Amino acid sequence: MKEEDFNKLHGYFIEDLKIGQQAILAKTVTESDIILFASITGDNNPVHISNDFAKKTIFRKKVAHGFLTASLISTVIGTKLPGPGSIYVKQTINFCAPVFSGDDVLIKVTVNNINLKTKRVGLITVCEKDGKKIIDGEAQILVQSKH
Amino acid sequence: MKEEDFNKLHGYFIEDLKIGQQAILAKTVTESDIILFASITGDNNPVHISNDFAKKTIFRKKVAHGFLTASLISTVIGTKLPGPGSIYVKQTINFCAPVFSGDDVLIKVTVNNINLKTKRVGLITVCEKDGKKIIDGEAQILVQSKH
Amino acid sequence: MKEEDFNKLHGYFIEDLKIGQQAILAKTVTESDIILFASITGDNNPVHISNDFAKKTIFRKKVAHGFLTASLISTVIGTKLPGPGSIYVKQTINFCAPVFSGDDVLIKVTVNNINLKTKRVGLITVCEKDGKKIIDGEAQILVQSKH
Amino acid sequence: MKEEDFNKLHGYFIEDLKIGQQAILAKTVTESDIILFASITGDNNPVHISNDFAKKTIFRKKVAHGFLTASLISTVIGTKLPGPGSIYVKQTINFCAPVFSGDDVLIKVTVNNINLKTKRVGLITVCEKDGKKIIDGEAQILVQSKH
Repeated sequence: MKEEDFNKLHGYFIEDLKIGQQAILAKTVTESDIILFASITGDNNPVHISNDFAKKTIFRKKVAHGFLTASLISTVIGTKLPGPGSIYVKQTINFCAPVFSGDDVLIKVTVNNINLKTKRVGLITVCEKDGKKIIDGEAQILVQSKH
Repeated sequence: MKEEDFNKLHGYFIEDLKIGQQAILAKTVTESDIILFASITGDNNPVHISNDFAKKTIFRKKVAHGFLTASLISTVIGTKLPGPGSIYVKQTINFCAPVFSGDDVLIKVTVNNINLKTKRVGLITVCEKDGKKIIDGEAQILVQSKH
Repeated sequence: MKEEDFNKLHGYFIEDLKIGQQAILAKTVTESDIILFASITGDNNPVHISNDFAKKTIFRKKVAHGFLTASLISTVIGTKLPGPGSIYVKQTINFCAPVFSGDDVLIKVTVNNINLKTKRVGLITVCEKDGKKIIDGEAQILVQSKH
Repeated sequence: MKEEDFNKLHGYFIEDLKIGQQAILAKTVTESDIILFASITGDNNPVHISNDFAKKTIFRKKVAHGFLTASLISTVIGTKLPGPGSIYVKQTINFCAPVFSGDDVLIKVTVNNINLKTKRVGLITVCEKDGKKIIDGEAQILVQSKH
């Protein structure tokens, strides 16, 4: 790959980022997503794959894997903000509410702090459904400098 | 679903758990996993899907999504310890080293603390490769009581 | 993999099994499952993938592949009873009723006989829907001894 | 769907079948097939998904789910012989040898007996790899009459 093509694929460098900068992702979580996610992870917890079981839990119907929704945070970080080239250091996740098949989720990632010395960027990471928080947390990312 | 069948599918109740109790999962992370994970999450960061791009990064070759490996923690929690019926409250993830296609990972989840009053159980969650830590962190789970 | 980690992943040894012991699995068979099953096996029989064709058969609507449901028997055997380490020797399957997309199935596997000399374990394998038998049959499994 | 289109999609009627008639299917079982099969069935037995675990078993490397290969029998029956319109009644499966990712398997289905009165057709069902039997068994199928 030529240097210029690599640079075109590369995301933000740390000097390009500003506190308050935001990127978002919208996705409808489908039944297919849930089944494929179960495939990769081997997570066949009946609350994800059996309506009959889920009916007897507080969720009343099959729920998506919490980590399926949480993984969408990583999608925003790895593809948009800061994007390709950044390195994931840390993530905290608070699961606030369930996601069901067919739900529309919105992932919002916002720059919270920037340390040019350590090259660490702190991000606020939130997932919403109908304007209601379903996941929140923070990420720490190592972002390369231009120099 | 009959009550007795639901109970057979249910995992541990909080009274059944002991500090130090452990469950593990072994998985070879394959290229198919990475491709399916990218398809579900939309995380097409070139470091995961382009050898050409990855060669020019510090990883030198395509890396698995950090969240793919981290999601295996959820598999152990949701299917083994505490298993079906438990509710994910919180997870912290520290990414220590990359996972490449073909790597064998081992996920270890260990009961660290139990609060019978709040029904919260704290777990130490570690992913290893060749005996070396690649992810560590802690989970907090809400586990039902028998009564 | 260390011996102790291998042992944690291993299922029952033949000495641990008891006649009457049972494990179950609950799953809602979804359209995604049917489509993925068709993709892996290449079984694109129109009765599984065309509502138009299926309407003119005795089933009146698309049916899940019988082997999709039957494969869930193998899931219980390979992951729960006797679990990892056991070797599939034989399976008989009687298809009694169809499964449609959205149906909740319950797989029940019960230890029927144990031969410590040949290390063979006989299992009764039943799939139900709304308490009605849809598949029955028997499995024979080779289960390792502790010694 | 028009009657003539339905008839074009329909497989053999019982009067069209002859003892000794055969249909075959060739497939390379891939890692993707194994991972997707695990998804649908939830069968994350480490012998299918962890090289590290499998190395310590008699198989020495990850094996495909036996039911994945066995399901290919159903593909031949449902799409070729007798094909669409036939109804699966019974199948016996003897697992003789393992299939690994990358293996080329050949499925052979042969008409063994025909009962025009009960409309039942008996089939010999064999899976081979490098000319060696890996699965054998028999199927019983209900095949419609032209009249």
